[in-house]
Amino acid sequence: MSEINAIGADSVGIVTPKTAHFNASFTLKSGGVLPVFDLTYETYGELNTEKSNAVLICHALSGTHHVAGRYTPEDKYAGWWDNLIGPNKPLDTNKFFVIGVNNLGGCHGSTGPASIDPVTSKPFGASFPIVTVEDWVKSQAMLADYLGIDAFAAVVGGSLGGMQALQWSMAYPERIKHALVIASSPNLTAQNMAFNEVARQAITTDPEFHGGDYYAHNVVPTRGLRIARMLGHITYLSDDAMGAKFGRKLKDTIKYSFDVEFEMESYLRYQADKFAGEFDANTYLRMTRALDYFDPATAFDGDLSAALDKVTAKFLVISFTSDWRFSPERSREIVKALLDNELPVKYAEVTAAHGHDAFLMPDEHYHAILRSYLSKIEV
Amino acid sequence: MSEINAIGADSVGIVTPKTAHFNASFTLKSGGVLPVFDLTYETYGELNTEKSNAVLICHALSGTHHVAGRYTPEDKYAGWWDNLIGPNKPLDTNKFFVIGVNNLGGCHGSTGPASIDPVTSKPFGASFPIVTVEDWVKSQAMLADYLGIDAFAAVVGGSLGGMQALQWSMAYPERIKHALVIASSPNLTAQNMAFNEVARQAITTDPEFHGGDYYAHNVVPTRGLRIARMLGHITYLSDDAMGAKFGRKLKDTIKYSFDVEFEMESYLRYQADKFAGEFDANTYLRMTRALDYFDPATAFDGDLSAALDKVTAKFLVISFTSDWRFSPERSREIVKALLDNELPVKYAEVTAAHGHDAFLMPDEHYHAILRSYLSKIEV
Repeated sequence: MSEINAIGADSVGIVTPKTAHFNASFTLKSGGVLPVFDLTYETYGELNTEKSNAVLICHALSGTHHVAGRYTPEDKYAGWWDNLIGPNKPLDTNKFFVIGVNNLGGCHGSTGPASIDPVTSKPFGASFPIVTVEDWVKSQAMLADYLGIDAFAAVVGGSLGGMQALQWSMAYPERIKHALVIASSPNLTAQNMAFNEVARQAITTDPEFHGGDYYAHNVVPTRGLRIARMLGHITYLSDDAMGAKFGRKLKDTIKYSFDVEFEMESYLRYQADKFAGEFDANTYLRMTRALDYFDPATAFDGDLSAALDKVTAKFLVISFTSDWRFSPERSREIVKALLDNELPVKYAEVTAAHGHDAFLMPDEHYHAILRSYLSKIEV
Repeated sequence: MSEINAIGADSVGIVTPKTAHFNASFTLKSGGVLPVFDLTYETYGELNTEKSNAVLICHALSGTHHVAGRYTPEDKYAGWWDNLIGPNKPLDTNKFFVIGVNNLGGCHGSTGPASIDPVTSKPFGASFPIVTVEDWVKSQAMLADYLGIDAFAAVVGGSLGGMQALQWSMAYPERIKHALVIASSPNLTAQNMAFNEVARQAITTDPEFHGGDYYAHNVVPTRGLRIARMLGHITYLSDDAMGAKFGRKLKDTIKYSFDVEFEMESYLRYQADKFAGEFDANTYLRMTRALDYFDPATAFDGDLSAALDKVTAKFLVISFTSDWRFSPERSREIVKALLDNELPVKYAEVTAAHGHDAFLMPDEHYHAILRSYLSKIEV
């Protein structure tokens, strides 16, 4: 989340999350079934009469529906993509009706592992099904129906969010005009999946995980969540960015201990504690699994171009030079597959030092590309 | 450790570790004091009459003194650098007298946290001091005295071992003719230190760590060690190497679970279990801290060239293109500082796919460079 001091004229202002209740069973790709479910969402701007100006923002691993604005005038933090979304910002809410949604399996309002299972009147916990990118997009389409939106002017996402934008273009070609796929990939590399596995192992082997049913024990697998978050932070930043931010700077004189000696250690522990205090471990497990499983080419013998055969959306694909978790090379695979299908695609490889986190930063070049592309979308 | 089926003519054969007991107190850089200490070591080849053909092998994070040969004819595994060391191998034991030593603080025979503190008659545990590269080199010099070796023909090491070779050249310029610094660095980057911190946090927050005194509780912080090892494995391999080895290969059909789904997960869990069953957590903590602290330029306002002012050894520096943990760029910093001092240095950047682990592999080009360099050393 970005921190600024005042709600400026380019802010969407004070926002309030809403909840859509779906009173119908939802069958997931895994075979699991949710008897009913809620999706928590926020909207910014106004839906036009033609309902042609809606933009869906898909969140990444630890994101939420709170994409822009603040909850109170005193709110210290704005939504996680507030630098991008607002009046006259690159994603201009004077033009677009923007929707942020918390994904199924999340821990910020939408039905997830910590929600009460209506069948047992207890938290789902371990029984909450595995969710996939395909499930999310299906549920987002139900939210679009609920809001009376036939087709999105654009679906936008970074990282895991970009995978959802890509999935939208395949699953509902008639319901998406533009897909903005940022710092993303058509699937995870073995290394990325390995980092996810370490994070999950840290959580599931935490004695306070209790097989996923820790709610009943009034504990949280804090240790595992801390490790998962520290590991995440390292991989979201580039080596150079960490060097520039912390280098080898000491907190104090060397004490020859396992306490905090270097500033970077202090930062990691702070981030770890903060995250472990607010994020649900069962959600973290499911979000990483959704990342692992996403691989649309699989059903086409590994041929991504064939997987994109039905796509009609126009694409903007953006990658960042220092992103080693979702490298430019992976974005170019998407671009190639789109070009193989003679689809209109614009691709930008932005020179940026921040690694994977660059997609959240207000880099001038990056935002100029988004502003230019979005300004040309007709609604 | 490398696995081969028979003890060939190019093997050093059956070897037996020895222990040198030092009956004098040893003050460490941290200020800690060991009243007495042991160093466990192995030797291969014969020390010549002039005692001019000794080569010291310094080990990395989880290495040992068992560098070459086997303990029994049936021994499934040879020493960890057996592909390099033996009769007619690149480091030829017909010419050189090779010494492998387990570092202080280790868990393979030399005095370490699991050793009995003669003062309390209990394992040192948490009270075992922090060890540094400087301490290791100082203790290795004492081992050289013990063996009657005035000067090493070469000190050789990869990764953390390379840091020891570099430290040898600074601390004892008159006792080292050649330093072979492989896949190493003049200090760790912030990212490397961050990975170490995550590994340590996993260990020290494991409930079975008991502040480092787990021996008394008859438990081991298995969970933390597992996480540390998995993380290590990911960073020792390149993304491409993991991709080539495992890709996204499934063990079976997708089960939508947190069990092993992908082959890479199976590999990581196996490696984690194996390591956690045999390596001491307190040693792991200290080895990573030694890596963090090593930074010879610090005492010279960050000027590595000034730090190398007293060096007289000749150098061979080798890096590997796919090594992202100790990148070629870091090796070139060493080379530059040596050249600033007009020291003779040969540098090779080997094209290799294996990442940091490449230094342990019998890559043809890499071994040819070592063979050529070592063959020209006069003893």
